[in-house]
Amino acid sequence: MRVLLDISYIGTNYCGWQAQDNGTAVQTVLENAIETGTGTHTRLTGSSRTDAGVHARLMRAHMEYAGSVPPDRLPFVINRYLPSDIKVTAARVIPDELHARFQAVCKKYTYRIDTAPHPNAMTLPYVWHYPHALDASIMDSAARLLLGTHDFSAFAAAGFQSKTTVRTISDVHIERLDTIVVFSIAGNGFLYNMVRIIAGTLAYIGQKKLDMLCIKRALTGHNRLELGPTAPPEGLELTGVYYDKCWNIPEITNIITEEHSNG
Amino acid sequence: MRVLLDISYIGTNYCGWQAQDNGTAVQTVLENAIETGTGTHTRLTGSSRTDAGVHARLMRAHMEYAGSVPPDRLPFVINRYLPSDIKVTAARVIPDELHARFQAVCKKYTYRIDTAPHPNAMTLPYVWHYPHALDASIMDSAARLLLGTHDFSAFAAAGFQSKTTVRTISDVHIERLDTIVVFSIAGNGFLYNMVRIIAGTLAYIGQKKLDMLCIKRALTGHNRLELGPTAPPEGLELTGVYYDKCWNIPEITNIITEEHSNG
Repeated sequence: MRVLLDISYIGTNYCGWQAQDNGTAVQTVLENAIETGTGTHTRLTGSSRTDAGVHARLMRAHMEYAGSVPPDRLPFVINRYLPSDIKVTAARVIPDELHARFQAVCKKYTYRIDTAPHPNAMTLPYVWHYPHALDASIMDSAARLLLGTHDFSAFAAAGFQSKTTVRTISDVHIERLDTIVVFSIAGNGFLYNMVRIIAGTLAYIGQKKLDMLCIKRALTGHNRLELGPTAPPEGLELTGVYYDKCWNIPEITNIITEEHSNG
Repeated sequence: MRVLLDISYIGTNYCGWQAQDNGTAVQTVLENAIETGTGTHTRLTGSSRTDAGVHARLMRAHMEYAGSVPPDRLPFVINRYLPSDIKVTAARVIPDELHARFQAVCKKYTYRIDTAPHPNAMTLPYVWHYPHALDASIMDSAARLLLGTHDFSAFAAAGFQSKTTVRTISDVHIERLDTIVVFSIAGNGFLYNMVRIIAGTLAYIGQKKLDMLCIKRALTGHNRLELGPTAPPEGLELTGVYYDKCWNIPEITNIITEEHSNG
């Protein structure tokens, strides 16, 4: 049977989701824990490939599963063999036709920029510490220029290959929490480094180093040089991956009700 | 001259604020970094003594300082020699009459309880994972019973010694963020383990294992046995320490303005 896992991780100590030559991949740690916990070898197919250092609150991945542990008990069994910075938050049987990556219709990311003069240890692992005054309302106006369907080729790191560079951005949002500017974006897909390039560009716009119209020019002229730097990975978090409602996959994980309570 | 430092830390890897026989103390790591960075030996006097595993977003401490680094540059110099889980967020010269602990008029703590069936790696270091359905509105009503001036001797761990066990609680607040119940409390001081005993009691009340009137009985009868367990340290965060307005100490750290921006 096919099982979909909800997965969370702090990316700091990993080379990213996918197995690489350098460093430990989140996927590898999970596959080893599944094998140890269930006695069955399987491969995970992730919904997204997060870079080294990027975090995930709700990543999703499917696997073919033939073990004896009931699927709803899998998080308990797998989490026992995972380090504290990787945890499975839910597991459920899905139809064989549901592919974690191909059927994902929406992904949400959050990027956090801490503008404080000095970093706060409590938030440092999850922010880009960028100690400059940023105008969040100009950043919000700039981010709205991304809404809709565009060719985002200017927003991809060099070397990126994909059948199409057209993506649809359905939602953007900027808010300020104390010294932290939080940028959230939702879309049907993102090119390699796209969210980090947007975050770096918005930071420069908020700092008045770039004019917000650079985004319009990049969307029409497809020139990476119009945009700001690629923001560092530690500020980025994959907050959710979503499927069409017909699949009945909960949009949020971790809802507890009286009858699920263990006490 | 006397200098007040604003300090933040993730408590996970430390035996608490104060130097102990077992483990590394936050205070010790800071004093070493100050000595390395400024070439001057000094002792820190903390506003609070957080336990092993407890976090701080805004702890404060004063020191006698005679180094050549200008006080407003101290965070840069000290942070260079600190690990990523301890950071100084501000430094300022204060009058010799201002003592970080004795003059503190208000301290604020937050306690987070994650009720999700399985922990999320992103929040796990900062929550008590307690996978039970909790009634946040009953917890809120119960917490309000703590408001005002009371003898909190039932809310202190055994062995606690203090001239008085009377404290004034000026604010309590419960909110739910997804699966996490966040309990915030402000007061003029807290007994040893007091916030963790309150958090454990509120969790039991939210779970209907205890009646909220146990708080009233404990406030009048001074019996620790009326209350719930001492909640674990990882859910606790010191969010702020405040002084009388006459001292002109900023209530929040880390405000950045155009002229302080380094860019």
